[in-house]
Amino acid sequence: MPQGQPVSVPDDGLSTRQRRNRPLTIVHTGVQKGKSTAAFGLGLRGWNQGWDIAVFQFVKSAKWRVGEEAAYKALGALHDSDGVGGPVEWHKMGEGWSWSRKQGSDEDHAAAALAGWLEIKERIAAERHDLYILDEFTYPMKWGWVDVADVVATLRDRPGRQHVVVTGRDAAPELIEVADLVTEMTKIKHPMDAGQKGQRGIEW
Amino acid sequence: MPQGQPVSVPDDGLSTRQRRNRPLTIVHTGVQKGKSTAAFGLGLRGWNQGWDIAVFQFVKSAKWRVGEEAAYKALGALHDSDGVGGPVEWHKMGEGWSWSRKQGSDEDHAAAALAGWLEIKERIAAERHDLYILDEFTYPMKWGWVDVADVVATLRDRPGRQHVVVTGRDAAPELIEVADLVTEMTKIKHPMDAGQKGQRGIEW
Repeated sequence: MPQGQPVSVPDDGLSTRQRRNRPLTIVHTGVQKGKSTAAFGLGLRGWNQGWDIAVFQFVKSAKWRVGEEAAYKALGALHDSDGVGGPVEWHKMGEGWSWSRKQGSDEDHAAAALAGWLEIKERIAAERHDLYILDEFTYPMKWGWVDVADVVATLRDRPGRQHVVVTGRDAAPELIEVADLVTEMTKIKHPMDAGQKGQRGIEW
Repeated sequence: MPQGQPVSVPDDGLSTRQRRNRPLTIVHTGVQKGKSTAAFGLGLRGWNQGWDIAVFQFVKSAKWRVGEEAAYKALGALHDSDGVGGPVEWHKMGEGWSWSRKQGSDEDHAAAALAGWLEIKERIAAERHDLYILDEFTYPMKWGWVDVADVVATLRDRPGRQHVVVTGRDAAPELIEVADLVTEMTKIKHPMDAGQKGQRGIEW
């Protein structure tokens, strides 16, 4: 935990401060709920530090993050109007990426996912944001739409101090290898086991 | 997941809609990061639905949730000024509960934790909020400051449609028993294993 002492201090030539401030690659994986919610919770800390935050939502349906999107956009607007917190961008694949001219045709999810990744890669090279939330990004990797080796190399070699969070089930072993912080959300209980379907305010 | 089908439909006399809208008791436990962040991420959905949200922070230091607190208060202020989202209250033990007259003297953590719980219990009886986030509430239970059986009975028998999230390590088995959704945050990797201490924007 924050005040704790590291179990070992590596011989990496870095000072404690340098090591502390290294950018993190964070992965939230596992079958249980909480992967994306924890990423969006984490982003609140970055927002409060004035970080430039970009969310990239790699899901087909635009339905499932409406609450988080509304809250993040409200927080981003507060930055723009009142100068508090940091700026927020929210891009989603299901409605066509917002920087893409070709809206509407989201039939080819593989091409859309790849276009999203290439945009992210460019932004990482340009050190455009402080925190990238790549929501459900494990799936395009799993399905071969995006090259895992390219993602891993891009994250491993990225310049500056950019934090990246990747969420989704079945994170690739190569991604876990290159990550600094990996949490698996493990199911102990789920309401669906008791016959309860998802509900407003909880699932979306 | 949201669009999935329940594995079994219980013989509880409820319609699918009634069952869907049952209030949830949610527990985030385990040793890894993400328990509280996932709770605060979840609250963004409730906020967007206009829910009345109350956070009760059962930690000694006021330091660790400054980002979430700032963001939640900003969102609550947006509700108060512009009518968007829901209202937010944020109470913390470390600085004296905000409804308590006796501020400042937080020496007796056990008494402070119990006072916090008794206030929550009253609010639950009065159906005061839609979502309660009881952050790090497993510890006062673990340490015997708050009676586990009282918490369990209060949550199990609570009126109306109030959702409750409890976070922290070592959740009591009785709490898990009465919960609907329980996630264990499992450590795969943590930066401290590589000698990296906590950093601004990530841990707070």
